[in-house]
Amino acid sequence: MSKIPHRLYLTEDQMPQKWFNLRSAMAEQPDPLLHPGTLRPLGVDDLSPIFCEELARQELDGATAYVDIPEPIQNVYKMYRPSPLIRAYELEKALDTPARIYYKFEGNNTSGSHKLNSAVAQAYYAKMQGLTGVTTETGAGQWGTALSEACSYFGLTCDVFMVKCSYEQKPFRKAVMNVFDASITPSPSPTTEVGRQILRDHPDTTGSLGCAISEAVESAVQSGGAKRYVLGSVLNQVLLHQSIIGLESKLAMEQLGEYPDVVVGCAGGGSNLGGLIAPFMADKLRGIRNPRIVAVEPASCPSLTRGKYAYDFCDTGRVTPLARMYTLGCGFIPSANHAGGLRYHGMSPILSKLYHDGYMEAVAYEQTRVFEAAVLFAKRETILPAPESAHAIRGAIDEALRCRESREAKTILFGLTGTGYFDMTAYENYLSGKMSDSIPTDADLQKGFDSLPKIPQNEGI
Amino acid sequence: MSKIPHRLYLTEDQMPQKWFNLRSAMAEQPDPLLHPGTLRPLGVDDLSPIFCEELARQELDGATAYVDIPEPIQNVYKMYRPSPLIRAYELEKALDTPARIYYKFEGNNTSGSHKLNSAVAQAYYAKMQGLTGVTTETGAGQWGTALSEACSYFGLTCDVFMVKCSYEQKPFRKAVMNVFDASITPSPSPTTEVGRQILRDHPDTTGSLGCAISEAVESAVQSGGAKRYVLGSVLNQVLLHQSIIGLESKLAMEQLGEYPDVVVGCAGGGSNLGGLIAPFMADKLRGIRNPRIVAVEPASCPSLTRGKYAYDFCDTGRVTPLARMYTLGCGFIPSANHAGGLRYHGMSPILSKLYHDGYMEAVAYEQTRVFEAAVLFAKRETILPAPESAHAIRGAIDEALRCRESREAKTILFGLTGTGYFDMTAYENYLSGKMSDSIPTDADLQKGFDSLPKIPQNEGI
Repeated sequence: MSKIPHRLYLTEDQMPQKWFNLRSAMAEQPDPLLHPGTLRPLGVDDLSPIFCEELARQELDGATAYVDIPEPIQNVYKMYRPSPLIRAYELEKALDTPARIYYKFEGNNTSGSHKLNSAVAQAYYAKMQGLTGVTTETGAGQWGTALSEACSYFGLTCDVFMVKCSYEQKPFRKAVMNVFDASITPSPSPTTEVGRQILRDHPDTTGSLGCAISEAVESAVQSGGAKRYVLGSVLNQVLLHQSIIGLESKLAMEQLGEYPDVVVGCAGGGSNLGGLIAPFMADKLRGIRNPRIVAVEPASCPSLTRGKYAYDFCDTGRVTPLARMYTLGCGFIPSANHAGGLRYHGMSPILSKLYHDGYMEAVAYEQTRVFEAAVLFAKRETILPAPESAHAIRGAIDEALRCRESREAKTILFGLTGTGYFDMTAYENYLSGKMSDSIPTDADLQKGFDSLPKIPQNEGI
Repeated sequence: MSKIPHRLYLTEDQMPQKWFNLRSAMAEQPDPLLHPGTLRPLGVDDLSPIFCEELARQELDGATAYVDIPEPIQNVYKMYRPSPLIRAYELEKALDTPARIYYKFEGNNTSGSHKLNSAVAQAYYAKMQGLTGVTTETGAGQWGTALSEACSYFGLTCDVFMVKCSYEQKPFRKAVMNVFDASITPSPSPTTEVGRQILRDHPDTTGSLGCAISEAVESAVQSGGAKRYVLGSVLNQVLLHQSIIGLESKLAMEQLGEYPDVVVGCAGGGSNLGGLIAPFMADKLRGIRNPRIVAVEPASCPSLTRGKYAYDFCDTGRVTPLARMYTLGCGFIPSANHAGGLRYHGMSPILSKLYHDGYMEAVAYEQTRVFEAAVLFAKRETILPAPESAHAIRGAIDEALRCRESREAKTILFGLTGTGYFDMTAYENYLSGKMSDSIPTDADLQKGFDSLPKIPQNEGI
């Protein structure tokens, strides 16, 4: 077999000590966050009642290229990082492709995903600011688990609003968060004003990330300054923290003498994709290299492929700042039939801008095709992927199959964000033939678009 | 912080290419397996109807010190090995101990445990022999998952008899095995003669590994030669395959300039413990080094600490060969109240012999103390351990606390065999205070001992 090992682990000494800020490589910056009342760009002071101060600064800083990773965060990273870059020899064989497929595996930690990278950072800054705890939302449950772990480590309380359908489908996710002393509430809930409102308007709702965000924000604001709200995706600060995925990937590929022709990542709010592609996209923006960058999203929540590039609320309850992003409208709630995560109505403003400017492609898959890829991958690579991650697998497999047709030995890198141990109900539905696809109709989408804020910035959209 | 990294991964090139046979270092061999009818020592021909031929040879070969790992097995190992040796800096801090604690973590693969090391080997030899499939039992489910993965990889069918209480407590374990196309039957079942017999005699039984073994053996024997039975623990061949854990551990510790003063492992049938300690025990047997070797078992299934050293059946249905081992009697069934694995009535004959001859210590813990250790470990080391593995954590913690008292900077190595993602019901019971301990009374044990075979070899026991 080749000299390239199956799995390459960087040593602890080689782990990056700085995060990379992708915005610093963008000639045009993403449009600024707007105050929902004044519609003026937000400053650190506007964000500080919601976010920790250091995180508010990171959110608004598009200029600084590299940000030091504080040593206490590095010390936690070292308990599960560097993560391996894996050559998918067995998958290549099964696909009979000349392509060389690599994946960066972020699932080997108890949160089961890459989410821990930002959770540790956000919990650390909350602790440094003297807060007693944080509030957040979780969809599939990976972010909530990651944040619970991080809060437990740093000695903070952690209040998690969990999208109701996930709360019900994944009782053991909740149990893991309980091990780390988190407090978990199914969302929408009667514990917040916005939750009560949503329950009055939609008594049968299965919830959405957008609702849960509204509840978590309200809960933080009501804490009298003791807590702040933290978010596991979408935000610029999250992409900054997640850049460690891409930095490690690039370094490991350099050691192997490789550079990806295509980088493929799953995309919900963009946390993994933005982190994975950061250094490769920077090369592209600077004209040093020209890799294709492919976002893979679920056909049931197709923000990039069918959404609008508009200013929208980050939440359903319309309490957050406005971000310009690809969005299905803050009122959009994906079908309950859709398994797993990637259920967010919008997309990271950074990724939205890059997509809008033509630096990135996007593709959407039905969930049965995604699970087909997941099962094949599990059997050949002996890792059971999270449904979210399986979107990237599907994308990478299709790239590799095209290489088989064209006889091109391309180098494909994809992000395997996590493991599927808490998604077995979905796997069972797939295996028993009970899983169906749920692609929103144009009318479904229009209902979502109708919920976009009617502001001058959105005129003509 | 220290120069010793948090996690040390050997490179792929450093992965051992041979297994180590601990028996080769023993001046006195374990007593031979006996034919249950003739009571004569078994040969390869006697075992071949049940086991694959190569595995039967490995079972009976006490002399060969090193056995080449076939390349196809190495190639699968490389998808998840070498596994990391981790320095438990955070746990040490939490315990305020001068001890240096290391653990070898075998949970970073989809089976969630070390069991894959032997599953891959056994499936490979079955495939090489031209069999169509294998049958087995599983308790906590880790072995069944591992074997399902390995069989799927090599293209074999996999029939798993799963201890009924695990089958019911862990629906998602079953689902994972389904991803790998395994066929799973709760045991005891009406599909075998021995299962029907057990159900007639004990209609309310929650099952035991011993019952499930009987069913799996019967099912293999009934296959007309197309299938063989495979077992994930107890056997000499399994300890051989699992020696890779110890070999890697020793090599990694050498790179750090360390040698353990104490090696701690959890013990059910002995697969992990036997593999972890192999090279260290060999040093001890040869007088090169003198590490303490500590087996940790559940107080609810205390084969080493309260069992008898006797010839016994390996199964409840009394169809297997007889092995001389520490045993609670093949009729012993641990309380259904006991969570997780380590439910086997006996113990590896190799480990039993070493314990009997004074080379090894053993300690038993109640499960609430084990879960207490598991939760502390999860919070500090950010890995959610399997309940089985948590026995070793408890043992290592207590060693480290004694070091705090005695102010000795001992080096402790323990085996972290796997992750607890499928054990969340047990964790929830512990966290909510519903978990109780269940230590068998002397009368309970006597009932088990009454089931020991009445043969001359057991006279006076």
